[in-house]
Amino acid sequence: MKALVYEGPKKVAVVEVADAEIEQPTDVLIEVSSTNICGSDLHMYEGRTSVEKGKVLGHETLGKVVEVGHAVYSIRVGDMVCLPFNIGCGFCANCERGFTGFCLTANPGTAGAAYGFAGMGPYSGGQAEYLRVPFGDFNCLKLPEDAKKRQNDYVMLSDVFPTGWHATRLAGLKPGDSIVIYGAGPVGLMAALSAQLQGAAKVIVVDSKQDRLKLAEGMGAIGIDQSEGDVVGRILEETDGKGASCGCEAVGYQCSDRHGHEVPNLTMNNLVKTVAATGGIGVVGVFLPQDPGAKDALAKEGAIAFDLGAMWFKGQRIATGQANVKAYNRKLCALIESGRAKPSQIVSHELPLQQAAEAYQNFDERVPGWTKVVLKPRA
Amino acid sequence: MKALVYEGPKKVAVVEVADAEIEQPTDVLIEVSSTNICGSDLHMYEGRTSVEKGKVLGHETLGKVVEVGHAVYSIRVGDMVCLPFNIGCGFCANCERGFTGFCLTANPGTAGAAYGFAGMGPYSGGQAEYLRVPFGDFNCLKLPEDAKKRQNDYVMLSDVFPTGWHATRLAGLKPGDSIVIYGAGPVGLMAALSAQLQGAAKVIVVDSKQDRLKLAEGMGAIGIDQSEGDVVGRILEETDGKGASCGCEAVGYQCSDRHGHEVPNLTMNNLVKTVAATGGIGVVGVFLPQDPGAKDALAKEGAIAFDLGAMWFKGQRIATGQANVKAYNRKLCALIESGRAKPSQIVSHELPLQQAAEAYQNFDERVPGWTKVVLKPRA
Amino acid sequence: MKALVYEGPKKVAVVEVADAEIEQPTDVLIEVSSTNICGSDLHMYEGRTSVEKGKVLGHETLGKVVEVGHAVYSIRVGDMVCLPFNIGCGFCANCERGFTGFCLTANPGTAGAAYGFAGMGPYSGGQAEYLRVPFGDFNCLKLPEDAKKRQNDYVMLSDVFPTGWHATRLAGLKPGDSIVIYGAGPVGLMAALSAQLQGAAKVIVVDSKQDRLKLAEGMGAIGIDQSEGDVVGRILEETDGKGASCGCEAVGYQCSDRHGHEVPNLTMNNLVKTVAATGGIGVVGVFLPQDPGAKDALAKEGAIAFDLGAMWFKGQRIATGQANVKAYNRKLCALIESGRAKPSQIVSHELPLQQAAEAYQNFDERVPGWTKVVLKPRA
Amino acid sequence: MKALVYEGPKKVAVVEVADAEIEQPTDVLIEVSSTNICGSDLHMYEGRTSVEKGKVLGHETLGKVVEVGHAVYSIRVGDMVCLPFNIGCGFCANCERGFTGFCLTANPGTAGAAYGFAGMGPYSGGQAEYLRVPFGDFNCLKLPEDAKKRQNDYVMLSDVFPTGWHATRLAGLKPGDSIVIYGAGPVGLMAALSAQLQGAAKVIVVDSKQDRLKLAEGMGAIGIDQSEGDVVGRILEETDGKGASCGCEAVGYQCSDRHGHEVPNLTMNNLVKTVAATGGIGVVGVFLPQDPGAKDALAKEGAIAFDLGAMWFKGQRIATGQANVKAYNRKLCALIESGRAKPSQIVSHELPLQQAAEAYQNFDERVPGWTKVVLKPRA
Repeated sequence: MKALVYEGPKKVAVVEVADAEIEQPTDVLIEVSSTNICGSDLHMYEGRTSVEKGKVLGHETLGKVVEVGHAVYSIRVGDMVCLPFNIGCGFCANCERGFTGFCLTANPGTAGAAYGFAGMGPYSGGQAEYLRVPFGDFNCLKLPEDAKKRQNDYVMLSDVFPTGWHATRLAGLKPGDSIVIYGAGPVGLMAALSAQLQGAAKVIVVDSKQDRLKLAEGMGAIGIDQSEGDVVGRILEETDGKGASCGCEAVGYQCSDRHGHEVPNLTMNNLVKTVAATGGIGVVGVFLPQDPGAKDALAKEGAIAFDLGAMWFKGQRIATGQANVKAYNRKLCALIESGRAKPSQIVSHELPLQQAAEAYQNFDERVPGWTKVVLKPRA
Repeated sequence: MKALVYEGPKKVAVVEVADAEIEQPTDVLIEVSSTNICGSDLHMYEGRTSVEKGKVLGHETLGKVVEVGHAVYSIRVGDMVCLPFNIGCGFCANCERGFTGFCLTANPGTAGAAYGFAGMGPYSGGQAEYLRVPFGDFNCLKLPEDAKKRQNDYVMLSDVFPTGWHATRLAGLKPGDSIVIYGAGPVGLMAALSAQLQGAAKVIVVDSKQDRLKLAEGMGAIGIDQSEGDVVGRILEETDGKGASCGCEAVGYQCSDRHGHEVPNLTMNNLVKTVAATGGIGVVGVFLPQDPGAKDALAKEGAIAFDLGAMWFKGQRIATGQANVKAYNRKLCALIESGRAKPSQIVSHELPLQQAAEAYQNFDERVPGWTKVVLKPRA
Repeated sequence: MKALVYEGPKKVAVVEVADAEIEQPTDVLIEVSSTNICGSDLHMYEGRTSVEKGKVLGHETLGKVVEVGHAVYSIRVGDMVCLPFNIGCGFCANCERGFTGFCLTANPGTAGAAYGFAGMGPYSGGQAEYLRVPFGDFNCLKLPEDAKKRQNDYVMLSDVFPTGWHATRLAGLKPGDSIVIYGAGPVGLMAALSAQLQGAAKVIVVDSKQDRLKLAEGMGAIGIDQSEGDVVGRILEETDGKGASCGCEAVGYQCSDRHGHEVPNLTMNNLVKTVAATGGIGVVGVFLPQDPGAKDALAKEGAIAFDLGAMWFKGQRIATGQANVKAYNRKLCALIESGRAKPSQIVSHELPLQQAAEAYQNFDERVPGWTKVVLKPRA
Repeated sequence: MKALVYEGPKKVAVVEVADAEIEQPTDVLIEVSSTNICGSDLHMYEGRTSVEKGKVLGHETLGKVVEVGHAVYSIRVGDMVCLPFNIGCGFCANCERGFTGFCLTANPGTAGAAYGFAGMGPYSGGQAEYLRVPFGDFNCLKLPEDAKKRQNDYVMLSDVFPTGWHATRLAGLKPGDSIVIYGAGPVGLMAALSAQLQGAAKVIVVDSKQDRLKLAEGMGAIGIDQSEGDVVGRILEETDGKGASCGCEAVGYQCSDRHGHEVPNLTMNNLVKTVAATGGIGVVGVFLPQDPGAKDALAKEGAIAFDLGAMWFKGQRIATGQANVKAYNRKLCALIESGRAKPSQIVSHELPLQQAAEAYQNFDERVPGWTKVVLKPRA
């Protein structure tokens, strides 16, 4: 089958690889029809991870079931399904509490597994013609009847929509709250959409890219252009001087100042400054335990100079980590099906799998207009 | 009246000051019968705060009502009451949600007021013969009939018991969990007691003082002596290599390593290492927004070098800040009344107010056996 | 001053009464500019309660502060404020936990006080030129700058919007859920609006009045006309045969079947049938502890023949009672201010206070088109 | 193999039946070493259910794994395991939210499956030498190393300890609360133990059996003997006239008055009377959707005459249904392992399986001293 593989820093290619197949009786095999490129794919693309050459990338996948292992109960050939990017077993101490992003079974020795990802287990990715899905009954989300026609909405259930939603849950957003979201990339935009769906009174989104801020404003958010300076002051002005009720970090370890220099603690400390006392901060932007390639001495060790004293006096809360997709995807699916949520609004490009390498390059270079790419292996 | 006042770094004295009196129609005046010295009093004592000379200290107070303002409804002369260390108005946006430690009324311009404390408003402290209580209906906790006889239990409702309890709530402790508590001072010990009362399966307490670890062990906790080294390894051993379900910071910005050197990020980063993935961390130890007297460059700015990357990969949560005493004191009072909780077990010294200066000195020098001092102004 | 008083069954009149005035130092006096008629006013109007003749009715009130007691801190003459229908003290064991609808102070001997209401304390109602507000700091919600222009939105914060919202909270609604609401009166409509604001995927509203169902449908809900029969079957059809995720009772003890006969257990047992297993049911429709005027023998005693066995096997939850308005009004105010919520959409009539008696009659007779009346004492 | 089968009203016998065996690749087979008789087994024993003759009864089971299907991942031959009485699949919409008592897969067409139970699917019970466990990875709780020696504690994790705990969770018990529990049978006693472990300030248990009340008192509860009359008055007296913070129903549809007459609404209406305003009521005693054998006309239809009006004015909450055992068993296991919980304290008889019929008879007749029977098939 054809698949997008990692070949080295800034080098990916669609090549012929061994067919994905059923390996365990609880596996499901899907024919991929939509698969996104994610911002976290770029961490591997840029060569800042330990991912091995030849790995098939991709963890945002939707497709049709073409084969099921003989111990699969509820999934049938022909079902249209969307896969959470994280792979859970469904029965370990973490999965049973809903922490499917921290499964203790699927990637022994650590907590959490995923498709096509550095350090997340031996699983091949979904930017391919076929994908093997472990623990199929648990991981496949069966889609409604309109799934084929609205793939660009439903494929967002694999990661970016639940991850944006997770950011708001980690932040403890409540209806009527104000919320400030740092980052208007796909995850930040989905956090903005999620906040709107949950009844936020005011959504503020910070970024330095005009095209992305416009998308946020199209969702009813207030855009704040970081390149114009004084981000903190402008947010306080929008929130009666008190700061927002809560906030989200949707940028991660590569956050940079208005001049484009990486300042790893910038968004975290700005969140402390711009979220009100007793407020919550949800961090879904990725921070790395080690980053040997970083320039900053603390960043090499996975640390930041963090304003804990200011945070403590404000009695704030910080919650972190990858989204437990299954905690959200069934309800978000219902919102898509009923027409209340249209996450496909962030899709900028729909391309055949063959053009994946070009898409990686443009997305990585933040070429204006390249917000979110959906690849179509069957096109 | 007689009161303990701050006279400069490491200098306090009991002197004659102007009588406390009713100033507002909603005030209550109490005759103090029990008032504790708190670890945070030492921050002022040591001269590392901006507290003005002549300020009456003390925020852990119990006494008898001797006068009420004419707009007071529910409190009567003769009532025995215990006062939360934080002063709330009861009607601001924070108080009405239960965040009485972040009252927006009592100390205008900031969030939070307290008796006898640097930066917490103009209120005199309770280490005195009399105390003025603002917003009396809201702040006075009326005590049960056995109040006079069991003052050393009930006075703990003012701060240290609710603060220890708060640590476990910020940590998200659930029955059957394991919990690791850094610090076996009065707050850490109360956190251990609180964890036991809430059904923790295993309570681990870390400190380097033998006498305090023994108190923790007397509550059923496992003591880990920091001075023997490898704190992280020993905690992981006690928790099947996964870390505790959750953890508490009850040390604060002055935490030090086994050699006694201040290492401000030590307990926070150890918590990240010794709490399991998806676990919560409750921080009630005080961290300062600025600490000009610190040796560490980051500490001067109120920052620490924090392992955010490791935390993010474990999907942990951190919650901080002073206890909203009123969120807990009524229920904790019921536990004392029914005999289920005896927080007085940490009291090491019961002294007349006149001996307060001596008590400050011994407590500040961590003289073995000086765990918790209750002063008695009427003795 | 002029006020609407109860004079006997189906008899109310606007008459001259003694001026409302400051009685306690914590009182606030307001000049009423908007005051609604509520469905529960009709319980008194119909003579089925113990309310005394001469009582000024009305508990949904907005106005301008014209005088404050000298122990009032945060409210100033000239402030535009909206009053929760329930009167709380702010410091009792219930108020401090947010249960302001069950205040133990304001109506001694029972839990809960209100303006102008049978059994809810000695307080005069707001369908008058002036209103005395006890515990003014706690009970007054200060409104934003656009308050005067958007009174018909903000006055809904006194009761009907928070009560509709409360119905959804008691039901345990979560984003992406389906919800079935029995009753499309003002409260049911506000429950539908609240469900939409909180991200419900599907909102189903049951009633037998065409005009009210149309209002519900205008909010995006699915209307089910009870007069067409088989309510249960049609709801199950809309919810894949499983029932809605949760449901609300917004009708109360006078619920009737499609032929107009009072069947007091009808909506409760239909809720059990049409809410899914493990779902929650929120009951804000009023049920009475005694109703001597009822025809049904159980109803006289305040009981219904309730399908507990079916409920138990479905593992459902029921939560009841009047809304704690202060638990919601500040956040709902923010939703109005930001333009996200427009509860005034249910207002059918805006009338001078002088026409109140006529309005009562039409509202009581469910004359089509009389959904919600706002009275204007200054008109 | 030998097993206890139902042969008709009040007739059970240990007979030879076909061996339990692996039927599905995800099954696990266990050799039963401890298996309890449950109060709900008596519903079948008494002939008031539709259970078929020849059915193997029993749903409280602990044993050693002797065979695993080839799609089982985490369970190995030789593991000591305890089985939740409810059978969940782990991947349906209810199981994934933790509602494993309402599994949509294991008993198609309804919500919830169990071993050896009327209407709960085709599964054989555990009062036998061997038991087939479906969805083995999900349903087996692996026990600690001391499992063999402390079987009488760990076997309680199958049902009665989690069900008692569930009662307190449905009631919304919080530390420092008072709680009233109706019924001192095994479930009521476990509710009392659970309340103590969670930090209840006062636990009140109501029953008419002296021996059971003594067990409750041995746990630190206050026993109230129903046969002495005025249950409501005495509970109010114990709770300052306000009622308990929350309450539990652990009796069910066969509740009877002090003269031994079945009065199906007695405990529910007493709970409304004796739980404080805003309090929660957890109902784990079984109520049936139909009970054709009942004398009471409403009871035949599964209904009770319920005081909804009184409940509504108190703003109470009721939550019902069988325990989702997996939501609790891992943490309760930790409490047993650490020595904090000893649920075996309710065991009155430890008997070989061969004596099961005699045990059923004595337990059914409430012979004094027959509180809880553990059968030992290997004895």
